[in-house]
Amino acid sequence: MVKGEFERDSRYIATRITEDGRDGFAVEAGRYRLVVARACPWAHRAVIVRRLLGLEDVLSVGFCGPTHDKRSWTFDLDPGGVDPVLGIPRLQDAYFKRDPKYPKGITVPAIVDVPSGAVVTNDFAQMTLDLSTEWTAYQREGAPELYPVHLRDEIDEVAKRIYTEVNDGVYRAGFASSQEAYGAAYERLFVALDWLSERLRDRRYLVGETITEADVRLFTTLVRFDAVYHGHFKCNRSKLTEMPVLWAYARDLFQTPGFGDTVDFVQIKEHYYVVHTGINPTQIVPQGPELSGWLTPHGRESLGGSPFGKGTPPGPTRAGEQVPVGHGAG
Amino acid sequence: MVKGEFERDSRYIATRITEDGRDGFAVEAGRYRLVVARACPWAHRAVIVRRLLGLEDVLSVGFCGPTHDKRSWTFDLDPGGVDPVLGIPRLQDAYFKRDPKYPKGITVPAIVDVPSGAVVTNDFAQMTLDLSTEWTAYQREGAPELYPVHLRDEIDEVAKRIYTEVNDGVYRAGFASSQEAYGAAYERLFVALDWLSERLRDRRYLVGETITEADVRLFTTLVRFDAVYHGHFKCNRSKLTEMPVLWAYARDLFQTPGFGDTVDFVQIKEHYYVVHTGINPTQIVPQGPELSGWLTPHGRESLGGSPFGKGTPPGPTRAGEQVPVGHGAG
Repeated sequence: MVKGEFERDSRYIATRITEDGRDGFAVEAGRYRLVVARACPWAHRAVIVRRLLGLEDVLSVGFCGPTHDKRSWTFDLDPGGVDPVLGIPRLQDAYFKRDPKYPKGITVPAIVDVPSGAVVTNDFAQMTLDLSTEWTAYQREGAPELYPVHLRDEIDEVAKRIYTEVNDGVYRAGFASSQEAYGAAYERLFVALDWLSERLRDRRYLVGETITEADVRLFTTLVRFDAVYHGHFKCNRSKLTEMPVLWAYARDLFQTPGFGDTVDFVQIKEHYYVVHTGINPTQIVPQGPELSGWLTPHGRESLGGSPFGKGTPPGPTRAGEQVPVGHGAG
Repeated sequence: MVKGEFERDSRYIATRITEDGRDGFAVEAGRYRLVVARACPWAHRAVIVRRLLGLEDVLSVGFCGPTHDKRSWTFDLDPGGVDPVLGIPRLQDAYFKRDPKYPKGITVPAIVDVPSGAVVTNDFAQMTLDLSTEWTAYQREGAPELYPVHLRDEIDEVAKRIYTEVNDGVYRAGFASSQEAYGAAYERLFVALDWLSERLRDRRYLVGETITEADVRLFTTLVRFDAVYHGHFKCNRSKLTEMPVLWAYARDLFQTPGFGDTVDFVQIKEHYYVVHTGINPTQIVPQGPELSGWLTPHGRESLGGSPFGKGTPPGPTRAGEQVPVGHGAG
């Protein structure tokens, strides 16, 4: 490990919610609450997958605000600053219900068992896979197969590299505490982005002919790239808008129902620039970048494939779950 | 004034070096030393103008390093850390020769009277105009007229807006200490850049048919835009590379002898990111942006005009004054 390298604590609460309930938590309609923050890329995965699969009626969602103090995420967006279902002001209350001495980061996404008020899991990587594979009985008609059996090996392989080099890679650059560690992180990141540009040059999606979990995972980093990672995390070889293949790919996803309609650029910028005082002590939030380009034609239909395959796109976003007007790319 | 707005102290030492020597300092070959730092946009003007006019033999130059502490610019690039002509390690020594209690900023560019070792002037705006109009007897054959009499009103008018809105505007954004002041600065800056894009859409140079002082003044900010102002100063509506007219205009100048060959991107980035710990406490210097675009065709020849009019371009940069290999856009 290079001196000054950022290392993510990846020891998450690995309890799973499964069809057979083997960890003590069976899939059940109305029992659980997904707690997210629109700002957070890890939580964003779950927001997208829940919507693509149409799980809104069976798995409710609570939104934390974009900024927080050392005690982590709060429900400051809710009336009275309290989550209306869980009745708590801070997400840490649900972690402490699970373990009064919970010693690690209070992270989103987290799924909370509503009856007990305790966090079941915050293992974001497993969480979306389980929404795809364990919650099948509750998925909407026409839900896409985001983790189809015959493509899992390939999805896992691609997703692994995306995780270490891109999703986590931007943090490795931004939180490096030495020039050397930063430089190494920057190199790794752009090598991976070049690989992805190459891979996506003549195929519309990362794996197979439709959107999969792999695309969801790449999208949540790409959509934040110019708004926060380029400047704030110094991932600045070029903007996403200057990487033609990835920029068209990202726009294609953005314009697909379930992706762009979950993106809140205002909260994303506010989170990163206000919370990370170690790299932005003034807490001033940049006014840019100009975002209207997200809605321009991407031209990738000609590569073949279709986002939902034999399935259908999700319908309009539920009332109460829409991104506020002015927070998107419109 | 908006709360938190940055205000530049513009009370410079206004003594002038003139042909008639009315301030006590007459234009004279070999008497003065121009002290600059390649990092600094205000000093960069003088570096470009001196070279365009071919004043190298009569006005020597001393280069300060890119970074400094509270006591300001030093000659740390020179052997022993001492300027070989002035024999001082810090530029402040020459300011204190002028006034032992000199109370204001130790800034570059400064012109030092070599015999006395005292700063004559640090008034950067007047300095380049005087190189053009008072040092005429020493200018090279074929030197361009950067401040021709019949265009002075127009140059002054354009340059004034460029100074307040662009040259200083990026600092107003970057050093704002409130969100409100930053937002106001950002708006003013991009309004001015839009105005410049419009002005330069169908004319090759800002005023007249050749390069003038106005172009020099705009260039020094544009060439730093993506490297430092976009990210570090949060001037991020778009990169220069995303403003097609200004980007082509800036490339055109960059590829004109006397402009691009004076640009040291390494020193520019190091200066801003290391010195301003208030906005970049980690002092980590970004590895980007990719710079090779500066050398791509700009296509602006078709707008008419020619950089040097009836004059000629300057010859190769003097030995000892070249930008180090790897510090340019190549």
